[in-house]
Amino acid sequence: MQRKIEVCLTPALIDLYAIENSIVVVIDILRATSSIVYGIDNGAAAIIPVAQVEDCLNYADKGYLLAAERNGEVVEGYNFGNSPFSYTTDKVAGKTVVLTTTNGTRALHLARSRASQVVIGAFLNLQALCDWLKMQDKDVLLLCAGWKDQFNLEDTIFAGAVVQELRSSFTHYDDASVAAEDLYVMAKDNLRAYVGKSAHSNRMLALNIEDDINFCLQLNICQAIPVLVGDDLVALEQEFKL
Amino acid sequence: MQRKIEVCLTPALIDLYAIENSIVVVIDILRATSSIVYGIDNGAAAIIPVAQVEDCLNYADKGYLLAAERNGEVVEGYNFGNSPFSYTTDKVAGKTVVLTTTNGTRALHLARSRASQVVIGAFLNLQALCDWLKMQDKDVLLLCAGWKDQFNLEDTIFAGAVVQELRSSFTHYDDASVAAEDLYVMAKDNLRAYVGKSAHSNRMLALNIEDDINFCLQLNICQAIPVLVGDDLVALEQEFKL
Repeated sequence: MQRKIEVCLTPALIDLYAIENSIVVVIDILRATSSIVYGIDNGAAAIIPVAQVEDCLNYADKGYLLAAERNGEVVEGYNFGNSPFSYTTDKVAGKTVVLTTTNGTRALHLARSRASQVVIGAFLNLQALCDWLKMQDKDVLLLCAGWKDQFNLEDTIFAGAVVQELRSSFTHYDDASVAAEDLYVMAKDNLRAYVGKSAHSNRMLALNIEDDINFCLQLNICQAIPVLVGDDLVALEQEFKL
Repeated sequence: MQRKIEVCLTPALIDLYAIENSIVVVIDILRATSSIVYGIDNGAAAIIPVAQVEDCLNYADKGYLLAAERNGEVVEGYNFGNSPFSYTTDKVAGKTVVLTTTNGTRALHLARSRASQVVIGAFLNLQALCDWLKMQDKDVLLLCAGWKDQFNLEDTIFAGAVVQELRSSFTHYDDASVAAEDLYVMAKDNLRAYVGKSAHSNRMLALNIEDDINFCLQLNICQAIPVLVGDDLVALEQEFKL
């Protein structure tokens, strides 16, 4: 089986890739896709990512949980913010959550109109995701959400972790895959220190989200693979059962 | 002095960068910017990069040397191709050369309308370039020409070599600079082997340009820094003397 892996380092480059027969994995490690994986793993019925806090208001009358943050604080009147610690079983099981995430939503919306399938990746579900990708007869595009369309370290090293895991099952790689894998190899013994090299690390420190960062860099604590169905991210198994 | 270095991993991302007060270094290691540096170092009066073979024809009546290649062969009626071995003193000293290069020309044209200054980088002039950049009171954007707007390894590791050299003189770095430097550190003991990991390496082998590749990966055999003045790339010193 001839399959290829490519890494799209920012959403701004997605038009360069033919993804009609590809599974696109959207990656926004700090913190959107980590929170989504954790929430779905903890039994959320669905998570709906939106770009702006204001977009949440469209869902206000539906009984959904609304998650919105500005400058690291939960927006008044909303249920919680973007911390993965908000996505525990007691809070989200059986619920639908509307989540505000600028970079992650942009990446999802760019991918879904053309891709064969769109799923969500994070360190939290790395192994489960890779095991599933190996079993599909599809090319894979790893789409880094980045930061305002620019390259970022944390999404790229996660892409590299996936490349390393899939390498033996795929036949073709682009240069970005090679680079991402090499950066992951360099980073993997101390992911936290490596992410600390990021230009955004001061911004992250200012948000007081150190606990969140450490949480998001844990490997394989979740089995869920969120998949996009319409506007909703749901557990992959649920889709199969429909 | 507060100065920043950023790495633009492909020309498709250049609009994300504020470069009005920046020196932009255009990088197309295989082979355009290597040939340009070597040619200017060997006394070429000017090198004019154009995007298409057909564009060369606009210069046919001016007595310029015309360099054009298709599928690794010199185009009939042209003086030579894109190999840096064509840019020796006996061939180019005192001459103006029109050079066909798709990715390099695209990068140059995107940069020149906004940048404070546009110069040319290659492993061949790495040290001279970095010594000069350190002395300027400007931010630096390292612009990788890439391959059809996609990320490539060879341009990125050269950007990383510049970052490593400039790090102590600059105060701010973006994530792409961090990644490029780390990839260069990984690659530098055997640049040829690292470039061989590229998805393009089979394409390069097919072009039978192994000697060219090895030539382009040599460090610091040139002192020239080509600078863009109008449509022409000329030696930086020439511009200063005007």
